[in-house]
Amino acid sequence: MHSFFVSPQAMSGQSFMLDPKDASHVSGPLRLVVGDRILVNDGSGQRALCELTKVDKKQVRVAVTERLVVPTKGFTVTLFQGLIKGSRMDLVIEKATELGVDAIVPISTERTVVKGDSTKFGKKVERWQRLAEEAAKQSRRADIPVIRPVMTLALACGAQSDLGLDKIIVPWEEESVSGEPMAPPLFAGSADIGLFIGPEGGFAEQEIDLLKDAGATTVSLGPTILRAETAAITSLALVMSHATAARAV
Amino acid sequence: MHSFFVSPQAMSGQSFMLDPKDASHVSGPLRLVVGDRILVNDGSGQRALCELTKVDKKQVRVAVTERLVVPTKGFTVTLFQGLIKGSRMDLVIEKATELGVDAIVPISTERTVVKGDSTKFGKKVERWQRLAEEAAKQSRRADIPVIRPVMTLALACGAQSDLGLDKIIVPWEEESVSGEPMAPPLFAGSADIGLFIGPEGGFAEQEIDLLKDAGATTVSLGPTILRAETAAITSLALVMSHATAARAV
Repeated sequence: MHSFFVSPQAMSGQSFMLDPKDASHVSGPLRLVVGDRILVNDGSGQRALCELTKVDKKQVRVAVTERLVVPTKGFTVTLFQGLIKGSRMDLVIEKATELGVDAIVPISTERTVVKGDSTKFGKKVERWQRLAEEAAKQSRRADIPVIRPVMTLALACGAQSDLGLDKIIVPWEEESVSGEPMAPPLFAGSADIGLFIGPEGGFAEQEIDLLKDAGATTVSLGPTILRAETAAITSLALVMSHATAARAV
Repeated sequence: MHSFFVSPQAMSGQSFMLDPKDASHVSGPLRLVVGDRILVNDGSGQRALCELTKVDKKQVRVAVTERLVVPTKGFTVTLFQGLIKGSRMDLVIEKATELGVDAIVPISTERTVVKGDSTKFGKKVERWQRLAEEAAKQSRRADIPVIRPVMTLALACGAQSDLGLDKIIVPWEEESVSGEPMAPPLFAGSADIGLFIGPEGGFAEQEIDLLKDAGATTVSLGPTILRAETAAITSLALVMSHATAARAV
């Protein structure tokens, strides 16, 4: 079943219009007709099963058939991602959204090679937000992760207490393979988890110190060297799995 | 430190030449000179720290400084990957290699949309093997995963006892989120693990039955819908992590 997003105001009614850009998609490539059913989400976790009551190129109206209860996972994960090159950053945004990340904060670090000013990054953040919305639809998520403005690692370390994080995880290639394992006990009682991933060259030693001062736990992702985007995707999958398991105990 | 592969015969000597295509890379883009050190692997798990003793465009000679002990993970993982479209299949080969997969078997299934004959697939398999070699160098693996010829799912199910698999895992989107969890106990005592991932449309119901008849355990990857390549990468990361944890107990 296809999935769409509308505003929370629209969702509060029993009948409402889809966004015009979705209307042309519904009547065009998707070839949906009156009577077909779709999932509609308000982007913040509300979801409804809806029936199409009017379909043309410019307007698609739907009626709510059933409001659905979306299970919440009971914790949040924010990914602090060192800026990496174009398509690899896109891959991280897409995959992290599929995996259920709640927010992504792009960070600039000592070894970041991707450069730009606030204007350039502002446009990039808008683009990443659209990518996240597309990936959220694709994976039938009821909400859309928020892509926050680019900030420095130092600022992110300072902001983490404002963000209310109660567990910070940093995969680090120099952490011993026999060191602290990523396992459910690490996440027992954690409600708001931050995952910090370095850029292509990893974090510098003093950046690891900064993160540790902010309360971070460094973990090993195993004996092989992972590219930055692989580290992001796989450690996010592990965090999601372990944090879920920790709450099931 | 840069990492290269040579044949096991070459590695048995105290001094040997690198492959000519690596020689131009060493003297060219990498700008290495006599006295620099590199890692050399024989592709099947032997590794040595070597010093460059001769460097020109056509020939690079090295001398073994120290033979290294490569920790073995104590289990093998074979990924049976439903054929998916071009760049996404490449992504799976690259990331699975980084994560430490031992072999990849591309499989055709009921919902496979990628078509081809044995000639076309033969060339693709050669290309995937080269991609795996590149990714193995990049992640400093001591061995290169083997990409096997494309086979049907039915044949793969029949071949799994010949391959000596003692645990077969199949992520399946219709498995209940509260069903069998991917966790270390699932892998206790397993030495040779097979992971089956469907193509874009997933496995058909009767294919799941076929896999279950072959002894497979179906698992859930969580509440969101993952693309085929995301399912492959993240479930492989989970298998690696849990199978390692199961052996550490």
